[in-house]
Amino acid sequence: MGNPDVRVPERADEVSWDLEADLVVVGGSLAGFTTALHAHELGAKVVVLEKASQVGGSARKAVAGMWVPNNRFMQGAGVVDRKDDALVYMARMARPLLFDRSDPFLGLAQWEYELFEAFCDNADTAFRALEAFGVEVEQDASFPDYHMHLPDVNAPRGRELFPHNPDGTRGNGKSFIARLAQRVAERQIPVYLEHRAAGVIINDDGRVVGVRVQTPDREVAARGRKAVVFCSGGFTHNEDMRRYYLGGRVVGGCAAFTNEGDFHRIAQRLGIPLVHMDAAYLAPLVLEKMVNRDPEMTGVFAVPADSLIIVNRFGRRTVNEKAPPQDRATQMLSWDPHDADHPNFLMFAIWDQRAAERFPGTGLGGFIPGPDDDAPHVIRADTLDQLAASIDERLDKLGDSARNVRLREDFANTLRETIERFNGFARNGVDHDFHRGETPIEITFHGPVAEDNHFPNGLMFPVADRGPFYATILAPGTLDTKGGPRVNTAGQVLGADEQPVPGLYAVGNSTAAPTGQSYITGGITFGPIITFSYLTAHAAVRELSNDPPTVDLVGDNR
Amino acid sequence: MGNPDVRVPERADEVSWDLEADLVVVGGSLAGFTTALHAHELGAKVVVLEKASQVGGSARKAVAGMWVPNNRFMQGAGVVDRKDDALVYMARMARPLLFDRSDPFLGLAQWEYELFEAFCDNADTAFRALEAFGVEVEQDASFPDYHMHLPDVNAPRGRELFPHNPDGTRGNGKSFIARLAQRVAERQIPVYLEHRAAGVIINDDGRVVGVRVQTPDREVAARGRKAVVFCSGGFTHNEDMRRYYLGGRVVGGCAAFTNEGDFHRIAQRLGIPLVHMDAAYLAPLVLEKMVNRDPEMTGVFAVPADSLIIVNRFGRRTVNEKAPPQDRATQMLSWDPHDADHPNFLMFAIWDQRAAERFPGTGLGGFIPGPDDDAPHVIRADTLDQLAASIDERLDKLGDSARNVRLREDFANTLRETIERFNGFARNGVDHDFHRGETPIEITFHGPVAEDNHFPNGLMFPVADRGPFYATILAPGTLDTKGGPRVNTAGQVLGADEQPVPGLYAVGNSTAAPTGQSYITGGITFGPIITFSYLTAHAAVRELSNDPPTVDLVGDNR
Repeated sequence: MGNPDVRVPERADEVSWDLEADLVVVGGSLAGFTTALHAHELGAKVVVLEKASQVGGSARKAVAGMWVPNNRFMQGAGVVDRKDDALVYMARMARPLLFDRSDPFLGLAQWEYELFEAFCDNADTAFRALEAFGVEVEQDASFPDYHMHLPDVNAPRGRELFPHNPDGTRGNGKSFIARLAQRVAERQIPVYLEHRAAGVIINDDGRVVGVRVQTPDREVAARGRKAVVFCSGGFTHNEDMRRYYLGGRVVGGCAAFTNEGDFHRIAQRLGIPLVHMDAAYLAPLVLEKMVNRDPEMTGVFAVPADSLIIVNRFGRRTVNEKAPPQDRATQMLSWDPHDADHPNFLMFAIWDQRAAERFPGTGLGGFIPGPDDDAPHVIRADTLDQLAASIDERLDKLGDSARNVRLREDFANTLRETIERFNGFARNGVDHDFHRGETPIEITFHGPVAEDNHFPNGLMFPVADRGPFYATILAPGTLDTKGGPRVNTAGQVLGADEQPVPGLYAVGNSTAAPTGQSYITGGITFGPIITFSYLTAHAAVRELSNDPPTVDLVGDNR
Repeated sequence: MGNPDVRVPERADEVSWDLEADLVVVGGSLAGFTTALHAHELGAKVVVLEKASQVGGSARKAVAGMWVPNNRFMQGAGVVDRKDDALVYMARMARPLLFDRSDPFLGLAQWEYELFEAFCDNADTAFRALEAFGVEVEQDASFPDYHMHLPDVNAPRGRELFPHNPDGTRGNGKSFIARLAQRVAERQIPVYLEHRAAGVIINDDGRVVGVRVQTPDREVAARGRKAVVFCSGGFTHNEDMRRYYLGGRVVGGCAAFTNEGDFHRIAQRLGIPLVHMDAAYLAPLVLEKMVNRDPEMTGVFAVPADSLIIVNRFGRRTVNEKAPPQDRATQMLSWDPHDADHPNFLMFAIWDQRAAERFPGTGLGGFIPGPDDDAPHVIRADTLDQLAASIDERLDKLGDSARNVRLREDFANTLRETIERFNGFARNGVDHDFHRGETPIEITFHGPVAEDNHFPNGLMFPVADRGPFYATILAPGTLDTKGGPRVNTAGQVLGADEQPVPGLYAVGNSTAAPTGQSYITGGITFGPIITFSYLTAHAAVRELSNDPPTVDLVGDNR
């Protein structure tokens, strides 16, 4: 919030410049690198400033699905994907209470609608441009949108793209970022590590002309002759901001640890409104990975196994274990008015020996360890009573870190009842409580049905009647946050008067997402980020330089 | 948001003053009038600017309960009410997920804790000072706090005060505001109606020294030689802000129609952070009163009758009808992840002829009309099937105003099952689904048990098996919003650097409430507002005048 590490805007006439380029890009990850590559391609001199000691931000840990309606693969295969269908799907999911098919903006605010529309109009172009750099993608033609089962949407499969490695294998966030970094290096675009933007520098007209930068040694001033572009992520790791804007309802998140809301606070100092600050890309986290600040931790995108259930501290199921992450995390925040309590804040995944053997792996946030893995986040016991006791002991040790939650005394008995009911559902193939296994995305996330599962619904299998049993503690967290200053379709940051702040651009999780409380579908971060990087680079490069150079240009690489 | 009706800060040296006083108070309602009275008492010249054409703001429509822990009545009766108990109760309710009895701030942010503590330390003093003006209050010694039933709190009865009319009757918001306005008039404190603060005026040191004011005829500049105090309410009636900060999840509210977030947007222009913007004092509203902009509409604080139930569009009960309003409204916002839908967004109160005869009245937001009342918000039918058809027809007519919600086809059948189950609960006295009638506040809100109700739980009575039946549509709304700039215990507005913005004060719903997502208990608006008006007036009056007078003082009334 008022952390002293963010500065009031400085006046350019009191500054002597240490670095200079046409575009100063803040953030060396997906948004920053793609913006830098496009701007460079258009002839601009670019420097990239990265706060961390490595590049890659949050994207480095991502699955790296990229949602691109009507992408080139669909076009090539003759799959029809109408723009209107994509817009309706996005609006329906973003604002279910405001969605109105008959409204010209589908019930959204105009700027939100315009961002969605610009995304639909330009995503394919932006991805083709990216591939032209030699950063390749592939399609998963069968991949479903999270909510394609809704009766009021038309969402064809195959909108989901993934990184494509040179060796033909499917890539991930890590390989994708490495590829982008390689392209940046080949073009000799300077990337300064441990360079943190602490404030902006403005000229007499209120135009943003540079940034004040903290480095390990000293402070420097970096001039952006055309623009400064913030690609610096959300505020997941700013505890004060989590408290003020997310009500303290998440325990943390798996964004880069450097995502501390720097740009949000810089914008605030400029009198720029921050909106949608209460929204986030939510996912359950493995609590003890979060507590231990495991740098490789990801959200639990897909809950593994067919005989695994998730219960609350009463021992009851309250959620479809196979639902997409935002849905599971949202249910963890539900409120019991009589007890004035969030009864599902911590949830407990429970599985048996068969699941442990058949479903190990860390893909999509999986948490079942392999036989030789070190897995301090897993609790093991021979009976359900012992498991309950061990979970409660673990909670007691975690104390504050588990928000002092403890199991209810009758947890083990209720858990037995819950298992009996679930096992009935598993045998008959229908989860009458939470619809487990009914939607395409659940089936995709689950992966191949176990060979020994001959029950009618491959996503359910009766929990064993004897141990050993296993458990891990889940808590609600973010992938990253969704609030911030609004931008227009050119990536220009909008001030309190709805007009662009001259010289100031932003892309990605540091800006207000138009997607509301929803996680529209897989790839809804990467797809739009890559699209708006493209649009932003084109717009920023068209800016007139605000003044002749005052120092030797850094990044003079053409 | 960026509505052009809010101005960038003007520089004082470019302004010629039209009005001048020591304190310029923006808002002529509870916070503004009590601040003005205290400041005047301390010798300051004060002017009050009111945006509407009448005084009284939202307070005019309030029940006007005032929560004052350890008030003079409790002291007089020897009821022990420890400060620690009040603090624990507030912190427990405000932030159930962060509450920590062992933390020095009970798990709250320090500024939140300090506001709670200042409230506890000064509420009794402030109320005594108010009464010394001849604005009297009375206690309801039996009145319970909303959540006194929780095992982990100690909340004695009798913290709730109410206006006391000169004729000995209990007053309400209207009579209370009238009394305050009378005291203001007696002291010849000028109150300018239709004077809207559109921006602030600052001097070269960044000190707020006045406000730019829009009047029906012209614009004027009002100078506050010591301070400007904003008491201008929340943003309930700014549709853009509701959309951006509350996710469009409320249909409106019963705050004064002038509560459009003016101060929030002015503060934004000063680079002041707005926090807790996603929180509001929530209450169900009678939808058609909201749609018709009934100026006397209030939230449904207490749902009347014993044989009345509330169901969703499926015909199912989902909430304890007798719970406090925030709890009922919160349940209306619950999310169904499978259908990507808010199934309880609109709810339908259903009652029978006996309830219509025994429980008419508008007190506490009651909606059952008397026999001769014009009640266009009520739907009547002879059978449940006809009632369902009529409700659905009404929804169809309301269209967008009802967010295009319609009843499910099997509503009437499900409603019959729901009634059968409820009637069983009523006969046995226990609501196994939602705990109806179990807490003290429900019994207080309900009032006297009907003479013919001999069932074990006076808050339940079987719904009749024959018509006529009645219904009204309920939707989630606000009393007013809870977010805004933070203030300290002196009412000083805190900037991005956590330091007070010189000369700028605020009290009430235009500031960030420390109470989180919760409605802590009845009177949690009036009690703190009256306390912080007192503290704010004392602090603001101690400010040094920023310059000698430049125009004849307005409000020179001592």
